[in-house]
Amino acid sequence: MPSNHTAFSIGYLIFHGFTSLDVWGPLAALNSLTMNETASLSLISQTMDPVWVDRSPIPLREGIASPEFYETVNPTHTFSTAPDLDIIIVPGGGATRNLNATQPYVDFLSSRWTDDLTFMMSVCTGASLLARTGKMDGRNATSNKAAFKWVMSTGPNVNWVKKARWVVDGNLWTSSGVSAGTDMMIGWIESEYGTDKATNLANLMEWNRMGQDNDPFAELYGLTDD
Amino acid sequence: MPSNHTAFSIGYLIFHGFTSLDVWGPLAALNSLTMNETASLSLISQTMDPVWVDRSPIPLREGIASPEFYETVNPTHTFSTAPDLDIIIVPGGGATRNLNATQPYVDFLSSRWTDDLTFMMSVCTGASLLARTGKMDGRNATSNKAAFKWVMSTGPNVNWVKKARWVVDGNLWTSSGVSAGTDMMIGWIESEYGTDKATNLANLMEWNRMGQDNDPFAELYGLTDD
Repeated sequence: MPSNHTAFSIGYLIFHGFTSLDVWGPLAALNSLTMNETASLSLISQTMDPVWVDRSPIPLREGIASPEFYETVNPTHTFSTAPDLDIIIVPGGGATRNLNATQPYVDFLSSRWTDDLTFMMSVCTGASLLARTGKMDGRNATSNKAAFKWVMSTGPNVNWVKKARWVVDGNLWTSSGVSAGTDMMIGWIESEYGTDKATNLANLMEWNRMGQDNDPFAELYGLTDD
Repeated sequence: MPSNHTAFSIGYLIFHGFTSLDVWGPLAALNSLTMNETASLSLISQTMDPVWVDRSPIPLREGIASPEFYETVNPTHTFSTAPDLDIIIVPGGGATRNLNATQPYVDFLSSRWTDDLTFMMSVCTGASLLARTGKMDGRNATSNKAAFKWVMSTGPNVNWVKKARWVVDGNLWTSSGVSAGTDMMIGWIESEYGTDKATNLANLMEWNRMGQDNDPFAELYGLTDD
């Protein structure tokens, strides 16, 4: 653990087909935060090859109309070169449904999810990768609302919370789909660095914040907690 | 111009220090749209080198605490290799204040902003690059609220609209800061592809939409239209 919160070593997992906003929403907040606070970021992938955002130039599944519509970003580390990490963040995306392609990510998470980790976080269907480690069993978590039932199937022993913008269970922070990750991250910054800093950066982002319990999308997708 | 809206050739400018969410908010919407609609995307930079997001590993200006906190993305085209474009989108960021570094982008915009262009769009302080071409003189536009007065100085003959989430003037679409670009893009998708499609993809993004006239940040930053 860092000696104080300003020294966090943050690892963000990236894989082919991750959802762009699952990474660059929270990172926009963290990029802003670290204008004044010291932290380090590692973008961790299976290899150092550029990673396709949202989709591959070769369609990952049928029905994708525009294979010529894509972006790529560059990892900074692989699983074997990643430094010690205080915080791990896992994005989602349709690609999480490819269990074979994402298994090395689940293995990496299993190996790094120890008592020494300060925070584990997921955005959207990234929660499915956490669930697949088995280490989230019995803990409270949430995920993307349109994909909720599938995500639940990846961790039947997780205590899935259907209606929440994000869920905090100790050092485990999980958000609902896509944009919810940014509200969670701003909420985490508020928790760690104070309300003034969180409010200021949210305003600079002109971000329309939603609170932790404000989740109209659960009902929209027919999810109700029993 | 494309024979129909499904054939748009979209060029997104990227430069060192662009604000991450200015690109990946709108692109998250467009990436989702183009799961079912055909379009092409070019990420256009001065060179094919990776582009630093939000900041450089060498601080662009003093006071940035974490040069080890950065991400890079890859252009697909340079100014000289960019294809014919129907839509150009310009992000913002603190880097837009570097007039020398961004002049080649202004020159590119000047050369491509012709009557053949279907839509010109900017997010955040990207409007300053449009203003610097002189081609926005006399037209309605908006920009980032915290940086508004500086942006106004880059185009004194533009009709700057202080209070607006985004502004539409014919084929010119300009948004307020950072997150506002995503509301604008979802609004543009609604305008071009219909309400059902826009609503569906906003819900899949779990995006908390703000309407075109909903701009609490103008007042927050002391901007009032005379």
